[in-house]
Amino acid sequence: MKLYNYFRSSASFRVRIALAIKGLPYEYLPVHLAKGEHRQAAYGDIAADGLVPLLELDDGTRLSQSMAIIEYLDDIHPEPALVPRDALARARVRALAQSIACEIHPINNLRVLKYLSGTLKLDEDTRNTWYRHWVRSGLEAFERQLAQQPASHFCYGDTPTLADCCLVPQIFNGQRFNTPLDGLPRTMAAFDACMALPAFQQAQPSACPDFEA
Amino acid sequence: MKLYNYFRSSASFRVRIALAIKGLPYEYLPVHLAKGEHRQAAYGDIAADGLVPLLELDDGTRLSQSMAIIEYLDDIHPEPALVPRDALARARVRALAQSIACEIHPINNLRVLKYLSGTLKLDEDTRNTWYRHWVRSGLEAFERQLAQQPASHFCYGDTPTLADCCLVPQIFNGQRFNTPLDGLPRTMAAFDACMALPAFQQAQPSACPDFEA
Repeated sequence: MKLYNYFRSSASFRVRIALAIKGLPYEYLPVHLAKGEHRQAAYGDIAADGLVPLLELDDGTRLSQSMAIIEYLDDIHPEPALVPRDALARARVRALAQSIACEIHPINNLRVLKYLSGTLKLDEDTRNTWYRHWVRSGLEAFERQLAQQPASHFCYGDTPTLADCCLVPQIFNGQRFNTPLDGLPRTMAAFDACMALPAFQQAQPSACPDFEA
Repeated sequence: MKLYNYFRSSASFRVRIALAIKGLPYEYLPVHLAKGEHRQAAYGDIAADGLVPLLELDDGTRLSQSMAIIEYLDDIHPEPALVPRDALARARVRALAQSIACEIHPINNLRVLKYLSGTLKLDEDTRNTWYRHWVRSGLEAFERQLAQQPASHFCYGDTPTLADCCLVPQIFNGQRFNTPLDGLPRTMAAFDACMALPAFQQAQPSACPDFEA
């Protein structure tokens, strides 16, 4: 398999985690988002949506959207499971993942930040305040959801799931923009539990071949 | 079942479509987002994330996040299927759904528009341009994805799926803000095919008990 991705892309990071947890080897193909490589014709021929991550299977089939890719990997390589088999548990894990992937991340991705700076001419402080506002308020909602669940080592249960694949990159992004992360005990305990695992360490931006400090 | 929702909420609309396609009866419980009812303590006690839709099962279990709710309904009431059974087909349908639910809708939801107007003091024209920009560019990317697929009556294949549940509310929202929808032949053909079905008609905002013109 080949993974088109970018070290700093939060959605790419989710898929790298899933691949590492499942122990699946892949070729790392960097697409430099900050340099706009995803908007060039060469990548447009590969990815109809111009986004990373994109997973290319050995037969050339290409899959987009990080959560869809992770569920596909879980369908084809079921162990260790990233989505529980029980319908209600699946619904909980997916809802937690979507609380990050649909409520926080999209409002703060690179093209939105570029629109704020470029089109709306907002200054860096205003843009960073925007960023921190959505991360913080989103993580507070995430924490309230975790607080209603039974105690667990990770976001849901005692093994990492799709929800943890989404949470960890979001925390990395929050830290990069100095978002306050205090008062989120369940969330940060799940993050710490993840980062104690080699799979999450291997997948992190600083471990990527295209990493830039 | 009870569905906490709002006639104009795009994510609520997705779940109403799924319930209608599956012919599942439910009690409609309106939460008036524009009046801020979702931020009041009474609703906070019900929904940890303060969002609609929220599906309450007959045993009181509460489920959040529209795509997770629809997949749950599909797990428990498999026919008619909204997510294909084949792993690759599932991945495609989920990716299309997420192209709407993770790439377009979150940037334009009510709380983001309120931040643009309230916190950033942007005028209505600037806000509406923002709205149309993300809908239009997102739907163009959606169209490119459909164009790479074999001909189909709906977004994927010849029955409506999770992808159609997400597309139709997004088109309604686009129309409400006068977004140009020309040059999107596959996308609009899928929309028209959906709107020819009674389930989509029944679920639309104007058919809701809390509808306001």
